[in-house]
Amino acid sequence: MGKIAPSLMCVDLLNVERDIKLLEEAGVDYLHVDIMDNHFVPNITLSFDFIKSIKRITDIPLDVHLMINNPEESLQYLDMLTAGDIVCIHYESTIHIHRAIGMIKDLGVKVGLALNPGTPIGVIENLLPDLDMVLIMTVNPGFAGQKLIPSMLEKIEKLRALLNEKGYSEIEIEVDGNVSFDHAKLMYEKGADIYVGGSSSVFSKENSIVENCKRFREIIGS
Amino acid sequence: MGKIAPSLMCVDLLNVERDIKLLEEAGVDYLHVDIMDNHFVPNITLSFDFIKSIKRITDIPLDVHLMINNPEESLQYLDMLTAGDIVCIHYESTIHIHRAIGMIKDLGVKVGLALNPGTPIGVIENLLPDLDMVLIMTVNPGFAGQKLIPSMLEKIEKLRALLNEKGYSEIEIEVDGNVSFDHAKLMYEKGADIYVGGSSSVFSKENSIVENCKRFREIIGS
Amino acid sequence: MGKIAPSLMCVDLLNVERDIKLLEEAGVDYLHVDIMDNHFVPNITLSFDFIKSIKRITDIPLDVHLMINNPEESLQYLDMLTAGDIVCIHYESTIHIHRAIGMIKDLGVKVGLALNPGTPIGVIENLLPDLDMVLIMTVNPGFAGQKLIPSMLEKIEKLRALLNEKGYSEIEIEVDGNVSFDHAKLMYEKGADIYVGGSSSVFSKENSIVENCKRFREIIGS
Amino acid sequence: MGKIAPSLMCVDLLNVERDIKLLEEAGVDYLHVDIMDNHFVPNITLSFDFIKSIKRITDIPLDVHLMINNPEESLQYLDMLTAGDIVCIHYESTIHIHRAIGMIKDLGVKVGLALNPGTPIGVIENLLPDLDMVLIMTVNPGFAGQKLIPSMLEKIEKLRALLNEKGYSEIEIEVDGNVSFDHAKLMYEKGADIYVGGSSSVFSKENSIVENCKRFREIIGS
Amino acid sequence: MGKIAPSLMCVDLLNVERDIKLLEEAGVDYLHVDIMDNHFVPNITLSFDFIKSIKRITDIPLDVHLMINNPEESLQYLDMLTAGDIVCIHYESTIHIHRAIGMIKDLGVKVGLALNPGTPIGVIENLLPDLDMVLIMTVNPGFAGQKLIPSMLEKIEKLRALLNEKGYSEIEIEVDGNVSFDHAKLMYEKGADIYVGGSSSVFSKENSIVENCKRFREIIGS
Amino acid sequence: MGKIAPSLMCVDLLNVERDIKLLEEAGVDYLHVDIMDNHFVPNITLSFDFIKSIKRITDIPLDVHLMINNPEESLQYLDMLTAGDIVCIHYESTIHIHRAIGMIKDLGVKVGLALNPGTPIGVIENLLPDLDMVLIMTVNPGFAGQKLIPSMLEKIEKLRALLNEKGYSEIEIEVDGNVSFDHAKLMYEKGADIYVGGSSSVFSKENSIVENCKRFREIIGS
Repeated sequence: MGKIAPSLMCVDLLNVERDIKLLEEAGVDYLHVDIMDNHFVPNITLSFDFIKSIKRITDIPLDVHLMINNPEESLQYLDMLTAGDIVCIHYESTIHIHRAIGMIKDLGVKVGLALNPGTPIGVIENLLPDLDMVLIMTVNPGFAGQKLIPSMLEKIEKLRALLNEKGYSEIEIEVDGNVSFDHAKLMYEKGADIYVGGSSSVFSKENSIVENCKRFREIIGS
Repeated sequence: MGKIAPSLMCVDLLNVERDIKLLEEAGVDYLHVDIMDNHFVPNITLSFDFIKSIKRITDIPLDVHLMINNPEESLQYLDMLTAGDIVCIHYESTIHIHRAIGMIKDLGVKVGLALNPGTPIGVIENLLPDLDMVLIMTVNPGFAGQKLIPSMLEKIEKLRALLNEKGYSEIEIEVDGNVSFDHAKLMYEKGADIYVGGSSSVFSKENSIVENCKRFREIIGS
Repeated sequence: MGKIAPSLMCVDLLNVERDIKLLEEAGVDYLHVDIMDNHFVPNITLSFDFIKSIKRITDIPLDVHLMINNPEESLQYLDMLTAGDIVCIHYESTIHIHRAIGMIKDLGVKVGLALNPGTPIGVIENLLPDLDMVLIMTVNPGFAGQKLIPSMLEKIEKLRALLNEKGYSEIEIEVDGNVSFDHAKLMYEKGADIYVGGSSSVFSKENSIVENCKRFREIIGS
Repeated sequence: MGKIAPSLMCVDLLNVERDIKLLEEAGVDYLHVDIMDNHFVPNITLSFDFIKSIKRITDIPLDVHLMINNPEESLQYLDMLTAGDIVCIHYESTIHIHRAIGMIKDLGVKVGLALNPGTPIGVIENLLPDLDMVLIMTVNPGFAGQKLIPSMLEKIEKLRALLNEKGYSEIEIEVDGNVSFDHAKLMYEKGADIYVGGSSSVFSKENSIVENCKRFREIIGS
Repeated sequence: MGKIAPSLMCVDLLNVERDIKLLEEAGVDYLHVDIMDNHFVPNITLSFDFIKSIKRITDIPLDVHLMINNPEESLQYLDMLTAGDIVCIHYESTIHIHRAIGMIKDLGVKVGLALNPGTPIGVIENLLPDLDMVLIMTVNPGFAGQKLIPSMLEKIEKLRALLNEKGYSEIEIEVDGNVSFDHAKLMYEKGADIYVGGSSSVFSKENSIVENCKRFREIIGS
Repeated sequence: MGKIAPSLMCVDLLNVERDIKLLEEAGVDYLHVDIMDNHFVPNITLSFDFIKSIKRITDIPLDVHLMINNPEESLQYLDMLTAGDIVCIHYESTIHIHRAIGMIKDLGVKVGLALNPGTPIGVIENLLPDLDMVLIMTVNPGFAGQKLIPSMLEKIEKLRALLNEKGYSEIEIEVDGNVSFDHAKLMYEKGADIYVGGSSSVFSKENSIVENCKRFREIIGS
């Protein structure tokens, strides 16, 4: 019963409304929005204004992935979000990670914590009571079209075990990076819950978005 | 014979293609694209991927305004630009401004240099031989909906005089920030050449984009 | 047999000498001095000159809590401290934490290491031989008047267990943040040793400083 | 008719109320409050809380000198200031100096701009309409007890000439750094208006604060 | 069967070729080249040009130790290295450590990861599949002539145990910092593989380089 | 009567002593030593240890060109320099340029100030009384093998005029970047005094160092 979170980096940026309607039709669970600042990662993609625009036309919850330094200083740009939305920040992006998480909670949304591939899962130790989701980066953030890092499968498995052991089995695990149909299956077996879908699944050119999502759902046990 | 450069921050981000077709119909001279990094200015708007997308559907030259730190490190993302396009960086954004300008020239495009409201025009002294354009920020960068800083009119006038005096009368002056119909007229009298149009001119709700541009052209002497 | 370290941020800044005399009368164990730099935390409070001044009028040992980036670069301002004083730096404030700790030892004072709420206790692994104290932040640093983070009680307990297990039971645990009378009791049960007292204990308006300290001592087992 | 602004760094930090009463008795014009962040200058002195405290006991206007990076991010700590107070920031402390000055004006107080000894006076060119005061640092900021930089006298003179020539003769010039009685006389002749007094004038040990201020006033033409 | 990696910081910088010939004669296994940037550590020593020069005259593999921030941005300067060489970066020097390691692999050389004395060994958890070597700093980096940190011996031992336990026994452990003959013996017993030799071993003035290396080899079991 | 300052970046790094002996034989006036930190410019070349080494074998004065951020923090590494040596820092490398210059004077050596190609000469206005030399970068710093920026010739001429006009004709002008024999002649006509010689002059492969220097001297009027 995994959830699909298509990456809006993969829609046609010139016709976003049209593509979001297709994603609505496909019944996806989240819209994944990447925000980069050219410093935490060396790239810039979607924007706060973009979030404001899509919030006006759809009720699909947003899954906002902030790849920016000191995200606590930009949360005021996200005040249009509501209870079902997720705001996810990187452990590596601030030395005041506990405070930043608390500030997201104060927005009234769900809190996600993203971990770079090299970051040990043990760092979440003191953050568990406030988290709704942990995002395992399965490629390095900031660049599209990368290959899955194989050892991230084991990382998902260990994280699921850790969460269950500590009494936080309700925290969901999201996976982001080269989540193809084949990889999604492996990730599902390891315990992933939310899948960021890109050009190798939801937006695969071989089929329509609706058909791709249908196939995706079969793989992740819905 | 001023030129119109509508700010793409003002189009409908969900239907960009449709709006660019309207701008083509209106015969604008440039499409102004703001790139921010949440560090040089505290905001994020359009993106390198966005530029790539619009380059595929229109022949209107782009006027890319980089509001990012150390822009020389991101120029590789602009390799799809061609001879008629402008890349404009801020004097305040790098201590190696001469080198950065040279790197833009190496891309084969026109070079613009933007000055924050507080920056004296004298700083361009050693950069003139390599410049095609100087952008006078008539509001502080990074925030929409601000009011014109009145003293910027005198700054435009002095810059035009300086350029002419130094033998660089062919360098164009661009103005960006609250360029309403009324303000455009004043800026035109001071010597501005390229006008970044936003919600108080090109995208004014009172008329269509085509009609707004027609009115704009009458003001700036075309 | 816990120790009381009243936070000097809570004294009357216009009449510090008078208040320190009261604290002397109350027999407190340390004077806790917060130094912030507006970068590690977004605030500025007490100063190096302030430390120099109070050192001239009292023999109560100081417990200096540096909330500044790269504290190793400012230790020369603390050369008036002596053997009984503590200098405490944050694990998150320098990538050369072992070197910084060594430099504090070279000052001839006791060494404390502060951990932000989100920082795992395991990071002290290679630092134990040089530490005299570990400070558990029970709120996020930089802001007064915050509420206790409940999970920090478990963090204290685990840290005490870790210290004992590794053979470092003599290392003291300090707690800082919303240490009210009620919370102090809970922290005492978990193994805390030094208590930073503020407006909800030592400086509570309901009683005099002397009476508050007396009540505090009863709670923390002296 | 110069104005005296004693530096509060020179009062007894343990008995501030007492010393401020003496300064009231002496009839000084401003209280000069230095705020440092250990980054713009390598030192930390007075604080935002300190300002809040003194505001409660005196009506002498404050002259707050911010020696901090990106001061625009900390202006919210100064919301207790009122119309007669001055907030002064450094030209070198932000690349958005025009915006920062506008934000100070929005606080409803007077705006000062400080220039490091090496900074040319020409940089104020586009900022004049918004300034109430320019502070010429006559020593390098951050360190007490330095000697006057002789060439700063000429800088004061040129600044006064520039202000008059541009039609801004009402902008006051403040001088800060080794403003002894002798130096004050020279600065007065060059056109200074506000004098930051320290240990070599207002707080000279040879006489009382009241007598020192009387002597000071005779020198600066009141 | 440990390996010797003399630190080129210890050769005569005015006659490097002569000293490298002596090291060839002594049959050392690596030449250890320290690159510092005055930011990650407060010093500057050898350079990229220096590496290029020595690569032209010797076939001894290089062991390049980058003590620089964001090393991924400088790897293009190391494109003259080949399969037998090692490039070693610090865990503390980038938040994208996994990506940086991947970029070194792409150079076709061996990958080393250095840990500051205070850094826990657990941080390598997700990096093991890509590592050829882990460097344990046995003094703090950046300064010559420091004393061995005694607890680093236990750190070596634990790292060796961890590597073996996780199935990565082929990853070599390098030690750097006060590796005298006596200390090398202790490090050898704990499981070190590669020894950075300096003035207290390879370059000891008591004997020739060739004799020193012979003695060194006897100690580290070759 | 210009002076020759060969760039030590161009000697054989493996046989520095040999090449310095040749430069002594050629009777050069200075040895130019470039120190880079990979941050102010993206490269690392010579080092503080290198300076210490060459100081031991030659009496030729050194001309140390610091291309590093905040050079004032590294001046302690240059305490082996003496009265005839020059330490040159970049205007763009610190916001406390006046203080940094004063700290160099305190070392007892001559003070140089380097200007990037884009930096206006007017910035030296308040620094003149303390300067012995101004270095005009005739290429952008940090990269070898670049072409002369033609407009820098006019910059030299204007700087010479400015220095003479302000009464500082004794301040020498140094030129650095593609100073070939042909370019040196042009620079000499504009008023340059010290010439940094590299591969297109002093180290030209067509002749010996001694012959190259002889030819150089004829060009620069000695």
